[in-house]
Amino acid sequence: MYRDGIKVVDCTIRDGGLINDHAFDQRFVRAIYQALTLAGVDYMEIGYKNSKGLFSSKDYGLWKFCDDEVISAAIDGIESKTKISVMVDIGRVNLDDIKPADQSPVDMIRVASYVKDIDKAIKMTNHFVDKGYETTINIMAISRDQGRELDEALAQIEQESRIRALYAVDSFGSLYQESVETLIKKFKSIVKTKEIGFHGHNNQQLAFSNTIESIIHNANYLDATIYGIGRAAGNCPLELLIGFLKNPKFDIRPILEVISKEFIPLRSQIEWGYIIPYAISGMLNDHPRAAMALRNSENKENYREFYDSLINLEAGS
Amino acid sequence: MYRDGIKVVDCTIRDGGLINDHAFDQRFVRAIYQALTLAGVDYMEIGYKNSKGLFSSKDYGLWKFCDDEVISAAIDGIESKTKISVMVDIGRVNLDDIKPADQSPVDMIRVASYVKDIDKAIKMTNHFVDKGYETTINIMAISRDQGRELDEALAQIEQESRIRALYAVDSFGSLYQESVETLIKKFKSIVKTKEIGFHGHNNQQLAFSNTIESIIHNANYLDATIYGIGRAAGNCPLELLIGFLKNPKFDIRPILEVISKEFIPLRSQIEWGYIIPYAISGMLNDHPRAAMALRNSENKENYREFYDSLINLEAGS
Repeated sequence: MYRDGIKVVDCTIRDGGLINDHAFDQRFVRAIYQALTLAGVDYMEIGYKNSKGLFSSKDYGLWKFCDDEVISAAIDGIESKTKISVMVDIGRVNLDDIKPADQSPVDMIRVASYVKDIDKAIKMTNHFVDKGYETTINIMAISRDQGRELDEALAQIEQESRIRALYAVDSFGSLYQESVETLIKKFKSIVKTKEIGFHGHNNQQLAFSNTIESIIHNANYLDATIYGIGRAAGNCPLELLIGFLKNPKFDIRPILEVISKEFIPLRSQIEWGYIIPYAISGMLNDHPRAAMALRNSENKENYREFYDSLINLEAGS
Repeated sequence: MYRDGIKVVDCTIRDGGLINDHAFDQRFVRAIYQALTLAGVDYMEIGYKNSKGLFSSKDYGLWKFCDDEVISAAIDGIESKTKISVMVDIGRVNLDDIKPADQSPVDMIRVASYVKDIDKAIKMTNHFVDKGYETTINIMAISRDQGRELDEALAQIEQESRIRALYAVDSFGSLYQESVETLIKKFKSIVKTKEIGFHGHNNQQLAFSNTIESIIHNANYLDATIYGIGRAAGNCPLELLIGFLKNPKFDIRPILEVISKEFIPLRSQIEWGYIIPYAISGMLNDHPRAAMALRNSENKENYREFYDSLINLEAGS
């Protein structure tokens, strides 16, 4: 699939940071930036911009806060066309911390938002646009919030926001390709003047195929992570996505190399990927938090009991 | 997705046996049969019928040969609606070894065939039909053999064979959902009087989504394996397929239980699943044998060199 408008956004450090409290060291982050640069990936999302008034830097690694000087230290001296992205959560960022884009190594700011917070997301992204940033709104938990509220949010975004792209985020790894088709077609039909993006989670081994499905229906902003790293089941593997896209600007080999050198050892220290409790929460369209708690308990392999406990919760709700 | 005609064929022991020379013990096979029975799975493919004149029973486990009395010992005393299937390869089975169906615990015989051998596959399956078996032809390497020869083979199957179902087998784990759509539509358009089946391999994490795609286009015979076990990258995970199919005859819980008890320990002894060299061979539409050789060498994690070696082979061919 070759289409000139396609942009690949690597979320390795940002989404992977949700597993280890954002504690990647500078050497690791620099190695990823180098590999993404050589591979021709369009964007590297390097972490979250969180207010230090809300979270202590004693409890979290550097990429929870993404100070401009920390980012600069990680990427300095590497000649690159790969742009830098950061993510912000609504209510967790101090807007005064965000310098104008021309004084920052950051190129793009993405606002993660639930449908109910779309007013705030529009206001924030317009603020960042005024400061010179590319922006996106990433609508989370899209497998649950699909009714009239979503339609209204999409119409409001189309009318009021100045974002570059609007993302559908399958936070629970619950969508099948038919639902992705329906969603992306809806997004395109209402949000006509922005690009559409897709961010999958891999609970049911569908993050890659759902990303392909979004491409088929003209989504152009595609999220992925190296070796699929990310919270719980992880994300669409970047190496598979690059293998699928036939755009000659991409080179898979630096990604393969960094998987060998960095991700195979890392995977023996922290856990992500196809793990049955995450598959179950995806099937049941649930947040993975119960499955994450199970994986941190001594019952981590008791899949049947876990399934029954979720079903009983649903029956009681 | 609920459709009455859908049949799920579990290939755990048959395809998983390709990893360990078919050396599962009787206790393990019996546990799988018990779990599949409780889960309501339609068929269990228990191994290959190979001639003992061609392969020594010293070199291989029981499920390379599937003697009727060995199968009977594994399933005796378990009340079950799950039918028993075996696979045969063309040129490797002695037809005189196959008793009439009413004297055998086997219900279905599936013939694995390349397009070039379709004459032989038709002849063999008709022979098995005469002996009272359900039969299928499983066309291997379908991602490579898609030209006029395939069209002719499909027409010949429609006219001459008495199989129950015809399978498309993505042996190299190379198909994307658009190619699955094209293929299944072609199969349905030519082979109008048989059911169509799909057997995926999981090199690019697409076995499950490709199986869903085949269902969307009216394939009714669906192969899967517990926890995705199978040669190299493995297969469509049965637990995901059952989670997707909304047919109340299926119960996922016995499968979850047997994964906890049997497959988590087994996976630490033998290897299958998402492993980069298999992803690479899938991307390049290659047989996994080079990747399997790599995984048995001391260079097993040298992905970039492996990729380059395959690309150079292609350039030289």
